[in-house]
Amino acid sequence: MTTLNFASDNIAGASKPVLDALVAASAGSMPAYGTDPLTARLGKTFSDLFEREVEVVLVATGTAANALALASILSPWGLCLCHEEAHVIDDECGAPEFFTAGAKLLGLPGAGAKIDAAAIAAAADRLPRHEKQMPAEIVSISQATECGLVYRPDEIAAIGEVAHARGLKLHMDGARFANALVALGCSPAEMTWRAGVDILSFGGTKNGCLAAEAVLVFEPGLADSLRRRRKRSGHTVSKGRLLAAQFEGYLADGHWLDNARHANRMAARLSQGLAAIPGIRLAWPTEANEVFAILPSRIDAALREAGAVYYPWSDKSLAAGEAIGPDEVLVRLVTAFDTAPESVEALLAAARGGT
Amino acid sequence: MTTLNFASDNIAGASKPVLDALVAASAGSMPAYGTDPLTARLGKTFSDLFEREVEVVLVATGTAANALALASILSPWGLCLCHEEAHVIDDECGAPEFFTAGAKLLGLPGAGAKIDAAAIAAAADRLPRHEKQMPAEIVSISQATECGLVYRPDEIAAIGEVAHARGLKLHMDGARFANALVALGCSPAEMTWRAGVDILSFGGTKNGCLAAEAVLVFEPGLADSLRRRRKRSGHTVSKGRLLAAQFEGYLADGHWLDNARHANRMAARLSQGLAAIPGIRLAWPTEANEVFAILPSRIDAALREAGAVYYPWSDKSLAAGEAIGPDEVLVRLVTAFDTAPESVEALLAAARGGT
Amino acid sequence: MTTLNFASDNIAGASKPVLDALVAASAGSMPAYGTDPLTARLGKTFSDLFEREVEVVLVATGTAANALALASILSPWGLCLCHEEAHVIDDECGAPEFFTAGAKLLGLPGAGAKIDAAAIAAAADRLPRHEKQMPAEIVSISQATECGLVYRPDEIAAIGEVAHARGLKLHMDGARFANALVALGCSPAEMTWRAGVDILSFGGTKNGCLAAEAVLVFEPGLADSLRRRRKRSGHTVSKGRLLAAQFEGYLADGHWLDNARHANRMAARLSQGLAAIPGIRLAWPTEANEVFAILPSRIDAALREAGAVYYPWSDKSLAAGEAIGPDEVLVRLVTAFDTAPESVEALLAAARGGT
Amino acid sequence: MTTLNFASDNIAGASKPVLDALVAASAGSMPAYGTDPLTARLGKTFSDLFEREVEVVLVATGTAANALALASILSPWGLCLCHEEAHVIDDECGAPEFFTAGAKLLGLPGAGAKIDAAAIAAAADRLPRHEKQMPAEIVSISQATECGLVYRPDEIAAIGEVAHARGLKLHMDGARFANALVALGCSPAEMTWRAGVDILSFGGTKNGCLAAEAVLVFEPGLADSLRRRRKRSGHTVSKGRLLAAQFEGYLADGHWLDNARHANRMAARLSQGLAAIPGIRLAWPTEANEVFAILPSRIDAALREAGAVYYPWSDKSLAAGEAIGPDEVLVRLVTAFDTAPESVEALLAAARGGT
Repeated sequence: MTTLNFASDNIAGASKPVLDALVAASAGSMPAYGTDPLTARLGKTFSDLFEREVEVVLVATGTAANALALASILSPWGLCLCHEEAHVIDDECGAPEFFTAGAKLLGLPGAGAKIDAAAIAAAADRLPRHEKQMPAEIVSISQATECGLVYRPDEIAAIGEVAHARGLKLHMDGARFANALVALGCSPAEMTWRAGVDILSFGGTKNGCLAAEAVLVFEPGLADSLRRRRKRSGHTVSKGRLLAAQFEGYLADGHWLDNARHANRMAARLSQGLAAIPGIRLAWPTEANEVFAILPSRIDAALREAGAVYYPWSDKSLAAGEAIGPDEVLVRLVTAFDTAPESVEALLAAARGGT
Repeated sequence: MTTLNFASDNIAGASKPVLDALVAASAGSMPAYGTDPLTARLGKTFSDLFEREVEVVLVATGTAANALALASILSPWGLCLCHEEAHVIDDECGAPEFFTAGAKLLGLPGAGAKIDAAAIAAAADRLPRHEKQMPAEIVSISQATECGLVYRPDEIAAIGEVAHARGLKLHMDGARFANALVALGCSPAEMTWRAGVDILSFGGTKNGCLAAEAVLVFEPGLADSLRRRRKRSGHTVSKGRLLAAQFEGYLADGHWLDNARHANRMAARLSQGLAAIPGIRLAWPTEANEVFAILPSRIDAALREAGAVYYPWSDKSLAAGEAIGPDEVLVRLVTAFDTAPESVEALLAAARGGT
Repeated sequence: MTTLNFASDNIAGASKPVLDALVAASAGSMPAYGTDPLTARLGKTFSDLFEREVEVVLVATGTAANALALASILSPWGLCLCHEEAHVIDDECGAPEFFTAGAKLLGLPGAGAKIDAAAIAAAADRLPRHEKQMPAEIVSISQATECGLVYRPDEIAAIGEVAHARGLKLHMDGARFANALVALGCSPAEMTWRAGVDILSFGGTKNGCLAAEAVLVFEPGLADSLRRRRKRSGHTVSKGRLLAAQFEGYLADGHWLDNARHANRMAARLSQGLAAIPGIRLAWPTEANEVFAILPSRIDAALREAGAVYYPWSDKSLAAGEAIGPDEVLVRLVTAFDTAPESVEALLAAARGGT
Repeated sequence: MTTLNFASDNIAGASKPVLDALVAASAGSMPAYGTDPLTARLGKTFSDLFEREVEVVLVATGTAANALALASILSPWGLCLCHEEAHVIDDECGAPEFFTAGAKLLGLPGAGAKIDAAAIAAAADRLPRHEKQMPAEIVSISQATECGLVYRPDEIAAIGEVAHARGLKLHMDGARFANALVALGCSPAEMTWRAGVDILSFGGTKNGCLAAEAVLVFEPGLADSLRRRRKRSGHTVSKGRLLAAQFEGYLADGHWLDNARHANRMAARLSQGLAAIPGIRLAWPTEANEVFAILPSRIDAALREAGAVYYPWSDKSLAAGEAIGPDEVLVRLVTAFDTAPESVEALLAAARGGT
C-alpha cells in the first residue's frame, strides 16, 4: 500500500546499512561507556570528515545533543540568541533551560526561520549591559531551518563574524545537517568551522539512523565538561556500540549523503508538483527535504480524505507581505530517505483531485 | 577464542530475540515520540506482567530511569535514603541531584550493600525536623544490590512499611531486576508493588537489550510529570520503536527470564568453582549474576596474566568481622546472558593454575 | 542642596517610622529564623490588612519575593505569561528561571506594560498542547506596571477569570503595591484575592523600607514549600526581626499609605508641570509614582546639564500610533516618599529653562 | 531581668556602632545596587584589612555567602569535601546543592568538627577517577568549627597545601571569623590567603550586625560570576547601603574585634565555671565563643527549670574514646557580643544549684 505519510522524517525507521552495522556490532563483548573500538574508530571518521580534529560526544536524541551543546557554553545566567521558531526554543520542553540551570533563549524574528547577521548584531547590541540583565553568550542557528531553508556558507560566516566580534560562540543545530549539506554541495568543514561554527549538533536520526546524534566540538577544551554533562544527564549509554555502530553504517561510503539526496529529490519533486497545481503556492522555497505549501482548504480536505498525513504549520515566519488567506492553510510535508516516488505521485494526484 | 571478560554485564551485546525484534520494527513508517503501536502494546504487556495497571515510561539508560524516578517524587530539598554504595549515589555522576535540582542522597551502611528496615527507620527518625535540614522523602533500594545480594519480598515489605509509615515512598533500582527475580522465584508483583514498591526502574540493558530501561509507576498521577521530565531531559527518543521493540523481544516467551537464569547459573558455577580453590573465599554469597571473591594476590596476578578482565571492588560493605588481608584482593566477576560455560571453566582453570 | 535625582524609588533610604521600629527592635535577645514575636505579630497584621488569613514569608529583596512566589507554583517545565517588559522577565538576571530550575517566562506585548485578559486568553489558547511544548501554569502582572500604570480591580478580576478558567494561577508583582493602592483608593483585598490574585509579592523597599518584601499566599498549602525554598536560597535571615520590624513601622498607623500618597502627589505635580511645557508630552498617563515623559533632546540636555538624574526608557510599550521622534527621548522620572516639592519644582524650572 | 539565653549568637540584636552607622546611612539619596559610596569605601576597607586587593560581594545571610562562594568554584558535577557536621552540609537545607545546580558535599569525620590535611588528602586520593564519579574540586572548612574549635594558621596552611596539590580550592566558612581571629591573635591575612584560603565567607551577623555577610575572593576572576549569581539568586539588595553601613560600623576602630573578644571572654568564663562543677566536663575545649559541656541530666534539668535556653548537641565528633553516659547530655551554650557577665554567673549558679 502506498503510504501518504509526510508527517516528519522521524516516522521512518532505519536504513539498511545502518541496521546492518547495528546488527553486526551487537554480538560479542565490548568495553562499556564508549570505550569500545567502534567509538574510537568513529572519532577518527568524524575528524577525517571535517578535515580537522574534532571532539565527538554521542547521544541518542537531538534534544540531548542541543541541550548539551548549549550547556557546555552558556553560563546559567547567559542568553542564547536564536530564531523565535527554533527547535531549541520551541520544541524541547525547556531542555536547554534545564541543562543550563536557567539560561534563557531569546527568539529573534526572521523570514523562513532564518536569522541574519545584521539582526543578530542589532539584537546583541541592543541588550542592556547592567548586571540585572542576562548577557548574550551564544548564537544558535538551525541548518536546515524550521521552514526548510538552508544557510549558505557565506551567510553562516557573516553570523560567525558578528557573533565572535561580540564574544559570542556559534552553535549549529544540524538535525538535518545532511539535507542541508547536499543542497549546498559544499563540504562539512565549509558549512561549519570554516564559517565560524564552534559547536555542532550533528543529526543522524532523521536521515536513516534509529537514534544517533553527535555533538561535535571544534572549540578545544569542552570535551571533558561535555562528557560529565552527558553522564549526569543519563545520556551515556553503557553499550556505546549502539550509537557508534549506527554512525558507522551511516557514514560509510557516502550512505548518509545518498539518503539525504534522495529525500531532497523527493521534496523537490513534491514541491514542483504542488506549485504547479492552481491555487497552491509555496510558503518558502524548498531547499532541503521539507515542503511548506499554502493550500486552499478544499485541497487540504481532499488530501486528508485520501489519507494523507502532515502537519499544519505556523505562518509566523512568512516573508513580509505574505499572508495566509481565510480559505487557506499552511502545511508542512516532509520527505525522508525512504520516501517512495509513488507516495509523492499519489499525494500529488490526490491534491490535483481536490482542485 | 574463549573470552575471559567478566568486567560487567554491560559488555555483552544484544540477545538474538531482542535484536530480531529491533530489526523487524525498523522498517516502515510509525508515529513518533512513543505514539507508535509497539509502545502502546508494550504498556499492555507490562500491565499483564505486573498484574495491575502500571504507567510505563521508556528510556535508553539506567541512570536516566533512576534519575527520572527519583525526581518524580523528591522535592528539590528532599532526601533520599539509600545504601552508601548504591548506584544512584556513587555511579551516576550526580544525575539524581541534577534531575531533582538539588535533592540529596543519604547513604546508609549495610553488609552486602543491603539496607534493612530497622536501619532505615532509625536513620529517618534521627533526622532533625528543623527547616534548616532536608526532610527524607523516599527510600531507594537496589535489586540485586551492588554486592550481588537479593532482597526477599518480606525484606522489601518491611522496608516499604517503615517507609510508608513515615510518609516516604519506596523506589527500586532494578538494573538487575530479572536476575533477582529468577533467583527468588517469585512474581514481578510480589517483588514490587505487593511489597510496597511505589516506583521501579526496570532494567533490560544488562540482560540482553542494547539500551532499554523502563520507569514503572505503581503510584498513579506521576505519569504526566514523568513524561515532561523525560522530554526536557532529552530522553524522549523520536523513533520510539527503538525502545519498545527491544522490550517486545525481551519480554516475549519468557526470554528475559531465560537470559537471567543462564547468567545466574554461570555465576553459580563460577562462584562454586572459585570457592573450592584453596585460598579463595567469597566476599558475599552469590545470589544473582555477580561473584565477589577474595583472591590471594598471586591468583589475581595469574588471572590477569591469563587475560582475565574484571574489576577490583570496595570492601566497605563486608560483613562485620570480615576483612581483606594484606595479600588479598576483593574482585567482582559478572556473568551475562551470553557468558559461555567454557569461559567460566577457563577462568577457573586459570585460577587453579595460580594457586 | 536640592537634589534632582529621579533615578528610582530605591535611591531613597528608610523613612523615619521604619527606622525607628528597626532601632527599637535591635536590642535584646529574640529567637532566630523568624520565630520571634515581631514576626508572629506581623502575620496577624497582614491578615487583618487583607481581611483574611494569609501566609506571610518575609525576604529582603523583590527579586527573591518574585522568584520564590513563581517557583512555588511553576513546575520546572512550566510557562509564566507576563508582559514582555515585566520586571520578572527583564530585570532579575534569570532569577525565576533559577528558582524554578528552568521554567520559562513568555512575554506578551501590551501598551503601557499592561496585559489584558483577552490577550492572555489568546496567548494561552494558542499554545500547542504537545509534550514538546511547555504548558502555561501562571500569569504574572506588575502593579503598578513597568510604565507606571495601574490595573483596576475589574481588570485584575478579568485576568483572574481567564487564568483560572485555564487552570492557571495569578501572581501579582507588587513592588509598588502601595502606590497602586492609593491611586485606586480601594482595599488591599479588592486589589488582590477578591480579584483572583493567588500569590502576591508585597513590596516595602521602594516605599520607605530599607529591604523588606513579603510573599503573601492566599492559596493555602504553599507555605511549607515556600519556607523550604526560602531557606535553601539563603533568604531566611537569622535575625528575623530585621524584616519584621521594618514592616511593623511601615504598616503602623497607615504610614505606608502616607508615604505612597506623597510619592504619587509628587509624581502628579511633576507630570503636570512637564506636560505643560511646550514640546514635552507624556508617554503614558501618570497613575502612580513614575512619570514617563517624551522630551525634546535639548530639554533632556538642559536637565542633564542642571544635574538631573533619571533613566532613558524603552518605547516598546507605547500605544499604537505613538512614536518617539528623531530629536526626542523617552525618559522615566520616579518620585518617592522623601521627594521634596522643591526638587520637583527645581526640575521643572530646569526643564522650562531648556525650552 | 537577667537572661539565661545561650541558644545562639544569632539571638542577639545589633551592637550600637553597627546600628548607629545604619541609621546614619539611612537618610538621603544614594545610587542603588551597591554602586553607592559606602560600598565603594568598604571595598577599600576590606583590602586594607586583608593586606591585599580582595573582591567583596555583600549579602544578608551566611547561607547565601557560603552557597555563592561554593557555586563560584564548583561545577555542577563537582564534589566539596568538608566535615560531616559542617554547616554547609547540615544546616542550609541544600543551599549549596541548589546554587551549584547539583554538586555534592562529601562529609568527612573528625574530632571537634575539624578535618585535618591528612584526612582530606586520603579522601581525595581514594576517590575513583571514572567519569561516573563526581570529582573533588574544593575543600570547605569552618572557622570556628561546629564544635567551637579554631584552626591554627599552620593547620589551615597544611590543608591548603594538600588541596592545591590536587587542584582543589579552599573555602573558609567564617561565620565566626572574628571569634576565631581574636582567639588566635593573628591577622586576617595570616588566617586566610597567606594560609591558602581562596575564598572566604566573612561573617558579621553573629558578632554584632543584624544581617551582613561578605564573600571575599582572593582568587581573581570570580567577581563577575559572583555578582551574576548574587543577582539571579535575589541577593543583590537594591539599597546597598543596608549592608555596607553595617560593615562600616562593624569594622571601624576595631569594634568587631572588641565584640569578639567580649564574647570569647564570656565563653571562657562560662567554660571554666562549668568545668569546675563536679560531674560536668567539656566535650571540646572552649576556644572561641561556644561552650560544649557534658552535663549530668539532673543539672540539665535544673538549668532548664531556671529558665536557661540552649541546645542539645551531637556527639558525633567527640574525640576517640569519649562518650556520653546514659545520664548525661551534651549541650551547646553560645555567648555573644552582648552577653552580660551577670548572665554567665547566673547560669553557673543555677548549674551549681543542680548538683
